[in-house]
Amino acid sequence: MIFVHDTPAQRVLFGHGRAGTHLADEVVRLGAARVMVIATRAHPEVIGSIPVVVHHTDVAPHVPVDVADHARTIASENSVDLLVCIGGGSATGLAKAVALTSGIPIVAVPTTYAGSEATDVWGLTEAGRKTTGVDRRVLPTSVIYDSALSVELPLELTVASGLNALAHCVDSLWGPRADPINASTAVTGIRALDAGLPAVVADADDRIGRDEMLLGAYLSAVAFASAGSGLHHKICHVLGGAYDLPHAQTHAVILPHVLAFNAPTAPDAARMIAAAFGTESADHGLARLRERVGAPTSLLPYGFDATMIPDAVARILPVVPESNPRPVTASDLTTILTAASTGDVPTAHPLEGRT
Amino acid sequence: MIFVHDTPAQRVLFGHGRAGTHLADEVVRLGAARVMVIATRAHPEVIGSIPVVVHHTDVAPHVPVDVADHARTIASENSVDLLVCIGGGSATGLAKAVALTSGIPIVAVPTTYAGSEATDVWGLTEAGRKTTGVDRRVLPTSVIYDSALSVELPLELTVASGLNALAHCVDSLWGPRADPINASTAVTGIRALDAGLPAVVADADDRIGRDEMLLGAYLSAVAFASAGSGLHHKICHVLGGAYDLPHAQTHAVILPHVLAFNAPTAPDAARMIAAAFGTESADHGLARLRERVGAPTSLLPYGFDATMIPDAVARILPVVPESNPRPVTASDLTTILTAASTGDVPTAHPLEGRT
Repeated sequence: MIFVHDTPAQRVLFGHGRAGTHLADEVVRLGAARVMVIATRAHPEVIGSIPVVVHHTDVAPHVPVDVADHARTIASENSVDLLVCIGGGSATGLAKAVALTSGIPIVAVPTTYAGSEATDVWGLTEAGRKTTGVDRRVLPTSVIYDSALSVELPLELTVASGLNALAHCVDSLWGPRADPINASTAVTGIRALDAGLPAVVADADDRIGRDEMLLGAYLSAVAFASAGSGLHHKICHVLGGAYDLPHAQTHAVILPHVLAFNAPTAPDAARMIAAAFGTESADHGLARLRERVGAPTSLLPYGFDATMIPDAVARILPVVPESNPRPVTASDLTTILTAASTGDVPTAHPLEGRT
Repeated sequence: MIFVHDTPAQRVLFGHGRAGTHLADEVVRLGAARVMVIATRAHPEVIGSIPVVVHHTDVAPHVPVDVADHARTIASENSVDLLVCIGGGSATGLAKAVALTSGIPIVAVPTTYAGSEATDVWGLTEAGRKTTGVDRRVLPTSVIYDSALSVELPLELTVASGLNALAHCVDSLWGPRADPINASTAVTGIRALDAGLPAVVADADDRIGRDEMLLGAYLSAVAFASAGSGLHHKICHVLGGAYDLPHAQTHAVILPHVLAFNAPTAPDAARMIAAAFGTESADHGLARLRERVGAPTSLLPYGFDATMIPDAVARILPVVPESNPRPVTASDLTTILTAASTGDVPTAHPLEGRT
């Protein structure tokens, strides 16, 4: 048991229907007088009582550099002293881009399960190329979770975004900085998502389920930011960037294949995942959840077909994390991506006859 | 699910036999040039390579004010820029007293399971009266855990200190700021302590067991600092202060009685504790662990007898936390303290006929 674990400071304010009062409290506590709201929608119930100098709606996926520069200029011109982002990963990502160059603190109000609000990872896209980095200045000072804000998230996106959060938990267990502290967080995240996601799929208005999902999304991001990207995220990052596949759906499809591949060589992780699901094996737990929520099973509908696999394998091989519990060959990746493309059940990857 | 959860920033460096290199790394990272070591022993293997300007050995339990003032003067006279405390709660507590008035950062190297290194709680004693407070400046910047430093801890103190850590976990589940995040930490702490303590009692040199105990002690303190003092700690605080009972042993004796009292009205907490122990009920799990490690069962050997109970009850009643899951009467406290004094098994406190 040898590790170095950094816990960053952050405040979480959690409560259904409480976003407005929680945000007002934070604005007072932080002494903010000139707030820039970053959100594509109006959200009067959230921002009604705070001193907003500008409401910025120019938000785009993957934070294009020109979108970031525009927001930075607006923040500077308006002498903004607090960024409040309300939305999914794109709104949070844009607030982070502004914070990265200005140091202005962020209060994040997430409405999806993307988890960006609990990490110090930023991303910018220029000419179709995404650059990411880590900087403590982009970690939101406070996060306000209010499940009333996520009830309108469409079912398909709820499922994909929830399974994306689940992927953070699972992949963090063999991430490069995996340790017993972030493993504990990841396991609790799996429990919360496994409870919340089926409840929300069964009834979109299930408040307890929505709360569980937000809690799970937060825990998943904390664990993931701490442990770092594992094999699953490296694969998804390449696929998303090279073939313009949708983020959350790609994660949802790929996860069972990576779990089936790694689990035999990561018995502690597999045992923890199984215990969190309350199932005999990690694979069974994930399969049960995916079945309950009608998870996407194939990348084909998003345009990823067999002809792309050799190129994808060539792109992924060089970025396989050294920390992966199992060596990864071109043949392994071909097997994983073929099954993910066609929607086959995960291939068993027995250890026999392998090093 | 409504809560506000503050996570403070802290770095943990963990590894058997690594304290020396981890400390050297931290001194460089923090840019420290004038270190004050607070430790009753020499510890050349830990501090060998760092720039120590003064090694302060004047440490006393409960941090008497004159001891604190002495250390503050020494720190000031030597233009100290980093405090490194090596030891149990008394050494950490003294470093906190210096940090409280000076703002000098602390790197803590704990050798017991007291957990003070992971909290922002300070304490000072004047004329037999202990004052405690909360201040972010006293939270150590970094904590270095090295199980090689705890192998010489006597068995009796190992057991009492380990059960004290366990009490942090259990009591945090009904603390005033209990939430699903600190509950997750507490539960993992229980698991680690339940694995580690019997292993260390069976073999004092069991390295994995010692690692588990340090991890459990850390998690217990994080959970406790976050959730706040529950009924158990209020009782122990009064007993320790009024009758000069030993800290860890008092916690070890009192815990099963408070658990038996609260569990029937705190079903979620009881279920989480039972799951962490892997037993049918929370009470059974704690009883099993206590039996395995030969836990102290009575306060009588420490001088707390039946004649003191009325006075103790009168002192405890006004400080019972509002958050306690069950109302607490003088009669309840008398029952708890009588059993704790004589060493009886915990009394069942059924709910029938009560509000």
